[in-house]
Amino acid sequence: MHAYRSHTCAELTAADVGKTVRLSGWVNRVRDHGGILFVDLRDHYGVTQVLCDPDSAAFADVEKLRSEWCIRIDGDVKARAPELVNAKIPTGEIEVFVREVEVLGPAAELPLMVFGDQEYPEETRLKYRYLDLRREKMQANMKLRSDVVASIRRRMWDAKFREYQTPIITASSPEGARDFLVPSRLHPGKFYALPQAPQQFKQLLMVSGFDKYFQIAPCFRDEDPRADRSPTDFYQLDLEMSFVTQQDVFDTIQPVIGGIFEEFGGGRKVDQTWEQISYRDAALWYGSDKPDLRNPIKMQVVSEHFAGSGFAIFAKLLEQDGTEVRAIPAPTGGSRKFCDRMNAFAQKEGLPGMGYIFWREKTADAVAQELGITVKEAQAKLKSGEVEGGMEAAGPLAKNIGPERTEAIRQQLGLGMGDAAFFLGGKPKQFEAIAGRARNIIGDELGLTDKDRFAFAWIVDFPIYEKDETTGKIDFEHNPFSMPQGGMEALQGDPLEVLGYQYDLACNGYELVSGAIRNHRPEIMFKAFEIAGYDEAEVRKRFGGMVNAFQYGAPPHGGCAAGIDRIVMLLANEQNIREVILFPMNQRAEDLMMNAPSDPTSDQLMELGLRVIPQD
Amino acid sequence: MHAYRSHTCAELTAADVGKTVRLSGWVNRVRDHGGILFVDLRDHYGVTQVLCDPDSAAFADVEKLRSEWCIRIDGDVKARAPELVNAKIPTGEIEVFVREVEVLGPAAELPLMVFGDQEYPEETRLKYRYLDLRREKMQANMKLRSDVVASIRRRMWDAKFREYQTPIITASSPEGARDFLVPSRLHPGKFYALPQAPQQFKQLLMVSGFDKYFQIAPCFRDEDPRADRSPTDFYQLDLEMSFVTQQDVFDTIQPVIGGIFEEFGGGRKVDQTWEQISYRDAALWYGSDKPDLRNPIKMQVVSEHFAGSGFAIFAKLLEQDGTEVRAIPAPTGGSRKFCDRMNAFAQKEGLPGMGYIFWREKTADAVAQELGITVKEAQAKLKSGEVEGGMEAAGPLAKNIGPERTEAIRQQLGLGMGDAAFFLGGKPKQFEAIAGRARNIIGDELGLTDKDRFAFAWIVDFPIYEKDETTGKIDFEHNPFSMPQGGMEALQGDPLEVLGYQYDLACNGYELVSGAIRNHRPEIMFKAFEIAGYDEAEVRKRFGGMVNAFQYGAPPHGGCAAGIDRIVMLLANEQNIREVILFPMNQRAEDLMMNAPSDPTSDQLMELGLRVIPQD
Repeated sequence: MHAYRSHTCAELTAADVGKTVRLSGWVNRVRDHGGILFVDLRDHYGVTQVLCDPDSAAFADVEKLRSEWCIRIDGDVKARAPELVNAKIPTGEIEVFVREVEVLGPAAELPLMVFGDQEYPEETRLKYRYLDLRREKMQANMKLRSDVVASIRRRMWDAKFREYQTPIITASSPEGARDFLVPSRLHPGKFYALPQAPQQFKQLLMVSGFDKYFQIAPCFRDEDPRADRSPTDFYQLDLEMSFVTQQDVFDTIQPVIGGIFEEFGGGRKVDQTWEQISYRDAALWYGSDKPDLRNPIKMQVVSEHFAGSGFAIFAKLLEQDGTEVRAIPAPTGGSRKFCDRMNAFAQKEGLPGMGYIFWREKTADAVAQELGITVKEAQAKLKSGEVEGGMEAAGPLAKNIGPERTEAIRQQLGLGMGDAAFFLGGKPKQFEAIAGRARNIIGDELGLTDKDRFAFAWIVDFPIYEKDETTGKIDFEHNPFSMPQGGMEALQGDPLEVLGYQYDLACNGYELVSGAIRNHRPEIMFKAFEIAGYDEAEVRKRFGGMVNAFQYGAPPHGGCAAGIDRIVMLLANEQNIREVILFPMNQRAEDLMMNAPSDPTSDQLMELGLRVIPQD
Repeated sequence: MHAYRSHTCAELTAADVGKTVRLSGWVNRVRDHGGILFVDLRDHYGVTQVLCDPDSAAFADVEKLRSEWCIRIDGDVKARAPELVNAKIPTGEIEVFVREVEVLGPAAELPLMVFGDQEYPEETRLKYRYLDLRREKMQANMKLRSDVVASIRRRMWDAKFREYQTPIITASSPEGARDFLVPSRLHPGKFYALPQAPQQFKQLLMVSGFDKYFQIAPCFRDEDPRADRSPTDFYQLDLEMSFVTQQDVFDTIQPVIGGIFEEFGGGRKVDQTWEQISYRDAALWYGSDKPDLRNPIKMQVVSEHFAGSGFAIFAKLLEQDGTEVRAIPAPTGGSRKFCDRMNAFAQKEGLPGMGYIFWREKTADAVAQELGITVKEAQAKLKSGEVEGGMEAAGPLAKNIGPERTEAIRQQLGLGMGDAAFFLGGKPKQFEAIAGRARNIIGDELGLTDKDRFAFAWIVDFPIYEKDETTGKIDFEHNPFSMPQGGMEALQGDPLEVLGYQYDLACNGYELVSGAIRNHRPEIMFKAFEIAGYDEAEVRKRFGGMVNAFQYGAPPHGGCAAGIDRIVMLLANEQNIREVILFPMNQRAEDLMMNAPSDPTSDQLMELGLRVIPQD
């Protein structure tokens, strides 16, 4: 028999009854039922119930076992009594009577229980990650992550892509975040950098003629930690293709990402058609360039109904250039309580408030006022049917702008009885993001957002430049390496009108994928940078590797990158990225288990030609 | 039609004749045959012959094309005349008549030609790697590498392993080489390290219960560059399993590695049975712990034949403790010229020389001396058959030790007419490596080494400790984390006798795989380190993450790591590792294409709390 196991802890069934078997695993828990000891023996694959009665020669050894000891047992497989069969686990038909037990690895007192649902502070979990990872949920998350990455690879291979490994110790990459530096020993005082992404290398691969590249690529950004971001390294599905248009990239990646969500989404609905929404429409409709489209709310411009209206705040506002009033329709949100809550939300976000109108069954109050009768009389008339009830618009805004404008708004937004609408005004840039958050909350609170769905859309037509409101300076709004739509010609006009072949994939409010058709013509690239205030020498200095390469017959090319950690987070229904990473740093970018970062030795510093500046 | 191509440059065949097609690619070369311009258009997939005659509207544009311009052409597919069909390429039956050409990316004057076999200095090739990579051989090598890695992954998945990603920015790993350090910004003055291998993490995964782990893992060692080593990062197939013995690891990895060599070995023979050779036997037989077993030569101890013999050098030597004389048999090496050449090799390696004996057809000289007649008479007798010729042993050694000992040696080594044997004496440690190299040269020069084969063997039973000859200090000979054979008990005896469950896989003279069954018991680990002079506190300090984890129910586990770059080198028949890496550093660990390493900005240094010490 094998030294450690004849079967895993998930394998034995009724068919094995009568066999002598050998199992290895961990003591999930030990129970004493009337003198008989029951051990749930757990390995990576499952749990097998093992038992030992006081007559057994092994009893004294089994008695000593404690949770999380790693043991090997030999024993006999017996059928459970019918009423004791556990249909929930594959080994639920049997139990194993211990003959012999060997302790392979005893355990000291546990700082963290593996079995059960006890919660622990994240610091404890990370310090004893090897115990935390034994827990059922963490095992499932890590298996899911591994299976997702494997499936992505299979899908990319099937799509005729090859995976190529690009350097990890290299030069700074122009992604805009902060680089991790690596001091050079052979060249003291000089530094390498870890790549923020393999952006330049994948473009160089296209120049090298590799045609279709992908990589599950480790990326490194020295950023301040956040819940949905790893403070050090993360992985992306990075891909690039030559001789393609934007639509080719979409047609390539959609089956991969969509397929992954079908395969691992646990039956949640996956959009089959991925709408393409311009960056500007996304900002208007959803207040976000990564809208959550599970939420059906679509915002609209309603300025015309407020211009010159009796609602002075908006009416005056609209006299200024570049202002707008936008409405967030809120179907089924037609109660004062809900509207007031949303107004409070806006105030918490730093706005003076959020005006609203809601439509409700006409009240006796309103009828009384309308007909100049008492409320009591109005109640009676409504009850008897002498006066028809119907819908009325409520809320201070409705009063200020009057019934006609109110009705026009209702019709534009397609709302009815029991619905509400919220209004925000000003320069869109100043309230768009808040409007977007309000839309999320409204969708959530009213149950409009379909939680059982993965909703995808391509956000396209990103502007290449933005203007700094204070300095008036033109700078790149997004990736400076995207090809401007219209090429060189477009760069001769108003920079703020130039759109790029640049795109993001939004899923459930997250940016899952980001990419572009690249600017592969040096002359267009120099012009594009010139507009943002970088001369040719600066561009050559910062991105020399790529710019030089483009002089030697660069093909048109484009691609994208998809965040692996975020995809797995969505699939695993986790809010914290550290739940889908094996050994993450804590929020101070420390690994307390491995003791990183730590003090270097003076020899190390000497070899690198560095001195640490004492901190106050 | 698609913006760039209706077909790749490898797709068109006689079946496409008559079609109008669009192709994109690079101008491999342009030829002018009697006024007609022939363009070999190349993409990642192949080459298509494109032509343009002076009547064509596109002629003026085609005339301007130069090598390595990236272009798009539209044209008509026509059949080649039968005598012009090129059976060597898939598109050899057709050619495309250009209607229209668009330059997608022109090329400046080339620092390196893509077409043709011109050799360039490595510095040029690395600086313009994007052009170098367009060359046929480099495309093939990189595709091979990608396909090998993909096949390894498929095979590991089929063997029920999951791939898990371990941290890249982490703490120092105890592999013994020099770490690359990464300064921390959030903790100025402290440093992370890049992993030399995921050794500790994969063992932690076993403690976490993951059972079967693998990873195509990037590894980082700050080593001085060498031809067969990347100066910065390299990849290994890293794997680990729980509840296994050494044989289980062998049975797991052999089908993977063997399968890869079958799949990508281009028909070269692949050993089906992998012998297990002890470290000590390998040293004796092959003078190496990574023997080239394509070479059939097996060395032997022949001390007894020299002890007390007339060959004073060896006879005296053997009177000292710990000395031996070993023979390298050299079948078919029986000529004085060859033997002298090998003797010269040994002198070049710093030995006084290498004694030899060779066996040849008896000469007239020898017969004359034996019978006391003239050489002329001897010649006549040999010719007439009056005296039988037969074999004689030649070389100074044979004379010194006399015919009986010489014959005993010949019989022990199983040699005959036309063969030779070389002899080295002393303390084995002092000449083993040279003997090993001599064995390689002998095998090569005599054509004994079967170049058309991948020969594998497991080297097992590595000693855990070695003694420093000068200081007498006991230290780890190899990986300090291997389980000693015999466990705690073995550690109570003579440390130099303790063998580990540690193994290497040798293939054609390279170490392809290295691994061990790990020491998972803290008490045995502390004892093992104590013998090498490290107390418990030191072990806890250096390997705290792993040692702590082993306190909480560690399973028996083991695994190995296989060098990806080296496997691909062997398959691609390359001697230089940079031929199988996309963007390698040069031998001074610089990337001249991307300009790494480079000077940090003062802001970067300030943020990291570092100062560069000025170098003289």
